Amino acid sequence: MRAEGIIRRKRDGEELTTEEISFFINGVVSGQVPDYQASAFLMAAYLKGMTHAETVALTRAMLESGETLDLSGLSGPRLDKHSTGGVGDKISIVLAPLMAAMGMKVPMIAGRGLCHTGGTLDKLESIPGLRTTLSDAEFRSCMLDVGFCMMGQSERLVPADRKLYALRDVTATVESIPLIAASIMSKKLAEGIEGLILDVKCGSGAFMRNIDDARKLARTLVDIGASMNVQTVALITDMDQPLGRTVGNAIEIKECLSALRGKGPDDLMELTYTLAAWALNLGDAVEEERLPMPMKDFTRRSYKHEVMEFIEKGDAFRKFVEFIDAQGGDPDVAFRPTGLPSASEVHQLKATDEGFIKRLDARAVGDAAMLLGAGRCRMEDSIDHGAGIMLLKKRGDQIAAGEPLATFYTNDPSKLKEAEDIFRSGIELSDRDVARSPLVLETLLEKT
Amino acid sequence: MRAEGIIRRKRDGEELTTEEISFFINGVVSGQVPDYQASAFLMAAYLKGMTHAETVALTRAMLESGETLDLSGLSGPRLDKHSTGGVGDKISIVLAPLMAAMGMKVPMIAGRGLCHTGGTLDKLESIPGLRTTLSDAEFRSCMLDVGFCMMGQSERLVPADRKLYALRDVTATVESIPLIAASIMSKKLAEGIEGLILDVKCGSGAFMRNIDDARKLARTLVDIGASMNVQTVALITDMDQPLGRTVGNAIEIKECLSALRGKGPDDLMELTYTLAAWALNLGDAVEEERLPMPMKDFTRRSYKHEVMEFIEKGDAFRKFVEFIDAQGGDPDVAFRPTGLPSASEVHQLKATDEGFIKRLDARAVGDAAMLLGAGRCRMEDSIDHGAGIMLLKKRGDQIAAGEPLATFYTNDPSKLKEAEDIFRSGIELSDRDVARSPLVLETLLEKT
Repeated sequence: MRAEGIIRRKRDGEELTTEEISFFINGVVSGQVPDYQASAFLMAAYLKGMTHAETVALTRAMLESGETLDLSGLSGPRLDKHSTGGVGDKISIVLAPLMAAMGMKVPMIAGRGLCHTGGTLDKLESIPGLRTTLSDAEFRSCMLDVGFCMMGQSERLVPADRKLYALRDVTATVESIPLIAASIMSKKLAEGIEGLILDVKCGSGAFMRNIDDARKLARTLVDIGASMNVQTVALITDMDQPLGRTVGNAIEIKECLSALRGKGPDDLMELTYTLAAWALNLGDAVEEERLPMPMKDFTRRSYKHEVMEFIEKGDAFRKFVEFIDAQGGDPDVAFRPTGLPSASEVHQLKATDEGFIKRLDARAVGDAAMLLGAGRCRMEDSIDHGAGIMLLKKRGDQIAAGEPLATFYTNDPSKLKEAEDIFRSGIELSDRDVARSPLVLETLLEKT
Repeated sequence: MRAEGIIRRKRDGEELTTEEISFFINGVVSGQVPDYQASAFLMAAYLKGMTHAETVALTRAMLESGETLDLSGLSGPRLDKHSTGGVGDKISIVLAPLMAAMGMKVPMIAGRGLCHTGGTLDKLESIPGLRTTLSDAEFRSCMLDVGFCMMGQSERLVPADRKLYALRDVTATVESIPLIAASIMSKKLAEGIEGLILDVKCGSGAFMRNIDDARKLARTLVDIGASMNVQTVALITDMDQPLGRTVGNAIEIKECLSALRGKGPDDLMELTYTLAAWALNLGDAVEEERLPMPMKDFTRRSYKHEVMEFIEKGDAFRKFVEFIDAQGGDPDVAFRPTGLPSASEVHQLKATDEGFIKRLDARAVGDAAMLLGAGRCRMEDSIDHGAGIMLLKKRGDQIAAGEPLATFYTNDPSKLKEAEDIFRSGIELSDRDVARSPLVLETLLEKT
């Protein structure tokens, strides 16, 4: 077997065998397949696509390139949630403690923000002292004592993904559904989970701009899960406007604390409850060794009712406090959010016109927040945890001329003007009332 | 300008600008564009193709990546001939001295054989003492004194091609017409020539197996020539059977010596005369600063008559003797070919059946010759200059059972059996007379 022959077959649109993909990926990790062969393969895969069997083989080869998390001796179904990333998407920070409160084990490996999208790790690191790099012993005690953790990816997990992603990033081969799916799923499966809830964001602030692409990605992810014996559901959710009312880091943690007390904005609460309900459904399926309840029987109301209790009783909030403590953070901030980083400059943005908000472009809001310091252009840039945007109006809201639209927080006032221009470029008003669009666009389960 | 953006545009099938291609190629040569970006670009170019303007820009950028030959102070039109390679294709060795005898200057950079195809340099090196690596001073004195040379490519000419070719070879991106064309033309244009005769081989023993591909390549090559102000003609010629009656190195030199005396086999003489006639036509066009005579006015007969005189008077043969001397070889072998390397084992292959030869597969003959030692599998392998095959019958010839078909020469008799099997797999007989197929299939000139 030779790397050149494998590249050639992919180039010609032929289906590679599991053995060929495994040979190639092992070679990439060991260095026997040099970077220039890997990148030619990636471009061929980008342009010619990969079949389901190839994508599963790729996921498996990537997964097997490294270690998996040790979750032995843990009781309760092992589940995780993954979002493909968006603006103001803080769901994980509310959902993980909620799932743990419901008795699930959630070994969440999370990521960082880039460009207009935020990252769970960045948001968490605005909590003074909190560490997202854990030793094996710290990880195990988090899982045993708290039931969940949120941490960065260790070097020992899925090394193939780190290598391939670095190459994809500089060879214009990022936006390939099979490559994206294999990257996501190999990392999630390395957590040793039994069930996975995927939140595939769709819209201007997401990686998938339209429903067709989002559907393709969601279907690919769910199919990989099914082939790898992990109960998987994918929800395609709206990311045309930001989720919740905050975009930033400390400011989003504050919103999460409200949400954990049941007082978050409607969209944030709704999506949290829906995803948690699906987690319950998957958890039951895992424990009873059957497929999850299909959509038609999935009476969201009853699951949702169960979920809401764990918020209302304060169990989820308490889990979050335990989590902060276990990962070295100051748990006091959960009760006194003034201890979180803040911004020296507070700037209110007013509407220049009256009308109903028809568009509140997630990408524009994310770009404005990045400019204020809340995000980074390049992975090596640092971020300002105190910076961010509070949205005072959202899509469908009515606004009068001169009424506050949003509040900007920053420690770099020189950027205010440009950030405001970008933000305003994402606003569109309508004379007439705007129909509320659904938050969950589609739900995909394993095909039966 | 960023390499990743250029790869992305090519990936999306957009047309790159001259500046983008130049930026990319300069980066590849300087090392600022790493190999993994170069190979992703090559795969995208392979799969998405390149427009005429892009191919010209690529050729120019590659040409400008290095030096060009110094041909200052030479009188007479500066022309060269290039073949895309085949089996038994020894034309250059006859044509270059013939062109020089006719007053042209031919600074020929030639190549080596690989797999079933032979290489001009390998054949020449079977002449004792002859060197194909020349210093600048030696090159100039060859050009001034003899009027032509045949040598290997210097490190300083077209470094971009060396780099790109090495990458293409291991990333399954060799067989791309724009990439092949830019590689050929950048190297030929680095010779500083004013006119170029291209022999695009077509058939089982050639890189281009069918007429459509051969035509695409020929058209691309001629169009690049036109855009770069070099008078260019491309002849698509048959390579379904080997050219001439010999396949090997020393054995082909012997056949060239016969041809230079006007006594070569018919196909070899015909193609030599035709290409030389085109050289005269291009040479006249260069001197008179006009386009070459178009096909319809190109009365091959009169040019051919002129050409034949230079063979008949012995001028071409004398040029070849001068050339051997100038490049350090022993000119005596031109008169006493027994001084050339030979083989210890001579094996005659007899027909097992009677009939007319319908197929004498060039690829099979080339592979058999390689096995006997006349060729190499990998560039780093050495070759046996004494090994080769003499074809006693060619396509269209009638043969009786038991009559000799070919003679094998080798110094490694252990390979005889396998070589014979391969050779026989390329032979097909017919009960009925076989129509002779034309040697020159098509001729392409600049579109006017």
